[in-house]
Amino acid sequence: MANIKEIAKLAGVSVSTVSRVINEYPYVSPEKREAVKRAMEAANYERNINAVHLSRGKTNLIGVVVPSIRRPYYGMLVDGIADEAMKDNYKLVFIQTDYEVERELDALMMLKLKQIDGLIIGSRACEWEVVEEYAKYGPITVLEDGRGRNVSSIYFDHYGSFTRALTYLWDRGHQKIGYCLARKSSPNSLKRTAAYRDFLAARHQDYQPDYAFYDCALLEDGEWIMERILCMEDPPTALLVTSDQVAAGILAYCTEHGVQVPDELAIVGFDNQPIAKMLNMTTFEIPLEEIGRQLFCQIHEKNPAHMEIPLHLIERSTV
Amino acid sequence: MANIKEIAKLAGVSVSTVSRVINEYPYVSPEKREAVKRAMEAANYERNINAVHLSRGKTNLIGVVVPSIRRPYYGMLVDGIADEAMKDNYKLVFIQTDYEVERELDALMMLKLKQIDGLIIGSRACEWEVVEEYAKYGPITVLEDGRGRNVSSIYFDHYGSFTRALTYLWDRGHQKIGYCLARKSSPNSLKRTAAYRDFLAARHQDYQPDYAFYDCALLEDGEWIMERILCMEDPPTALLVTSDQVAAGILAYCTEHGVQVPDELAIVGFDNQPIAKMLNMTTFEIPLEEIGRQLFCQIHEKNPAHMEIPLHLIERSTV
Repeated sequence: MANIKEIAKLAGVSVSTVSRVINEYPYVSPEKREAVKRAMEAANYERNINAVHLSRGKTNLIGVVVPSIRRPYYGMLVDGIADEAMKDNYKLVFIQTDYEVERELDALMMLKLKQIDGLIIGSRACEWEVVEEYAKYGPITVLEDGRGRNVSSIYFDHYGSFTRALTYLWDRGHQKIGYCLARKSSPNSLKRTAAYRDFLAARHQDYQPDYAFYDCALLEDGEWIMERILCMEDPPTALLVTSDQVAAGILAYCTEHGVQVPDELAIVGFDNQPIAKMLNMTTFEIPLEEIGRQLFCQIHEKNPAHMEIPLHLIERSTV
Repeated sequence: MANIKEIAKLAGVSVSTVSRVINEYPYVSPEKREAVKRAMEAANYERNINAVHLSRGKTNLIGVVVPSIRRPYYGMLVDGIADEAMKDNYKLVFIQTDYEVERELDALMMLKLKQIDGLIIGSRACEWEVVEEYAKYGPITVLEDGRGRNVSSIYFDHYGSFTRALTYLWDRGHQKIGYCLARKSSPNSLKRTAAYRDFLAARHQDYQPDYAFYDCALLEDGEWIMERILCMEDPPTALLVTSDQVAAGILAYCTEHGVQVPDELAIVGFDNQPIAKMLNMTTFEIPLEEIGRQLFCQIHEKNPAHMEIPLHLIERSTV
C-alpha cells in the first residue's frame, strides 16, 4: 500500500496537504483536494487511524502532573511543555493532584495502560520507589533532583540558592530573616529549611520558629503573613519568599499599610514572574518556560537524563 | 463473570478497595489485598481495560481548547473544569491554539476519531459552521453565545455589561473613555465595540480611534498602553479594560509614574481576579471557576443547552 509521501508525490502537493485531505480538514482548495483523492484512488490508499496507532503503539499524548495549573508557577512551566509538545505534534493530558497521592497514581496508571506515551511530574506526591516502579512502562521525567533514580529529572540547587539569598541579605545588615515556603515537608522545602538552619548555626544565631511561614502559595497569602508579622514584638527585617506571587501579595500589603520596603522590610522573591518585573522586585530567576521545554525533551531520551538549572539573583528595588 | 461490586461484597471490602487492588495501586493493606484476590479467584474474575474501554466506547478524556493556559483568565476557567472532571473521574486533554484554526481543527478531529469523549472550547477560532459539523461525533460546548447552534454554550452579555460600565463612568463625569480589548475582531470584542459605538452615538459624541487599544492580554501590556496615553494631547480620563491582568499592569504603571488613580485616570477591569481584589480595583466579576464547572456539566447534557451568566460590577477604589 502506498504511503502518504508517495500520495503527495503522485498528487503534486505537500505531505501536509495530503494529511489535511485524509483528515477531512476544511481550508484545502477544491483543486488540491481533488488531486489528492485521485492519487489515493490510483494508489488504492486506505487509512485506519486505529490501526496506525496500534501498529505504532503510540497515542501522541503526554501526561503532565501538577498540583494546580492555575498557579502562575505551573502555568509558566506548562506553557514551555505545551510549546515543545506542539512542535512534535503531541497533546498533553493534565492531571491536577493538589498533592494527593491517589491522583498521581492515576497518572502513573495511565502510563502503564498505554493511555499516554510518557509522563512529566511537575511536583511529586508519591514516594520515589512508587514512581520508579512505573518507569518500566514508559518514560517519566520529574522536576526535582532525581539523580540515582531510573527516571529523568531537571532540578535546581535549592540548598545553594537559599544560602546565597540568605548571605545576600545578611551582607546588607539583615540578621532577622524570615522565610515563606509552600508545603512544609516537600523535598524542596526540606532542602531550603536545612540551608536556613545551617546558615544560622554557622553564624551562632538561634532558630526562630516564628520566622518560618508555611503553605504560602498564592497572592492572597501575603495578607495573613503580614498581619502576623505586624503583631510580632521582634519581627524579621527581611523575608525570603519562595514564590513571586506571595511576595507580590506581601508587597501590595506593605504599600497599602504604609510599611516601607526595603527600609522596614526587605523582600526577595523566587521565579521572576512578570509581576516581579512589574513591581521591580528583587528575585531569583527560575526559567520556567525553558525548564518546561527541557522536561518535554527529556521524555524522548533513551536513558534517564539529569540536568541542573542554575538560578540567578536579579537585583531590583526591594532589598 | 462477576462484576466489581460482587467481588467487593464477597471480599467484605469497599468497591474502591477492589478497584485499587485490580489496578495494582500501592497503599492497600496486605490483608485487604489478599481478601480481594481470594474473592477474585473464587469468582473467576478477569479484567481487560481495553475491552472495558471498547465496550463502553469511552476514553474518559475530555478535550479543552484554550488559546493559552498560562493566562490567569483561562487558568481560572480550567481550574473549574478540572475540579468537576475529577469528581466524575475524567481527565482533560489540553489543546492550546493561540487562536490558530488548524490547532482547533486538531481538537475537533480528536472528537471525530473518538480519542476524546467531548470537547470544551474556551475561545473559538474556527467558523461556527465548522464547529457545528463536528457536533455529530460527540458533545461540544463553547464559552460564547451559541444559541441557535447545535452545540451547548455558556455566555455573558458582553454588549450589556460594556454599556453598563460605560454608563457607570459617564455618570461619574467621564466623557473621554478609552477601552482595551484582546483580539480586535473576536466575537466578544465585536459586541463590545458595537456597544461602545452605540453608546457614543446616543450621546452625540464622535468616535475616537485613538481611544481603542487592541491585543491587550497580559500584565506587561499595561506599559505600552500607558506610554501611548501619556503622549496624547487629549487623553482619555477613564479606561475600560477587559482583563484584570492588563488593568493591574496599567495601575502599577500609574503608581510608579505618579499618575493619580482615579483622579487623573479611572480604571474598570473585568474578571475579578485575585490581583483585582489585592489592588482594590473596580471590576466586573466573571465567575470563571463556576463557569468552568458548568461547561463540564454541559458535556453530559443530552441536547444542546445554553446558559447566560450574569456579570456584576464590583465597586472599589479605581473609579
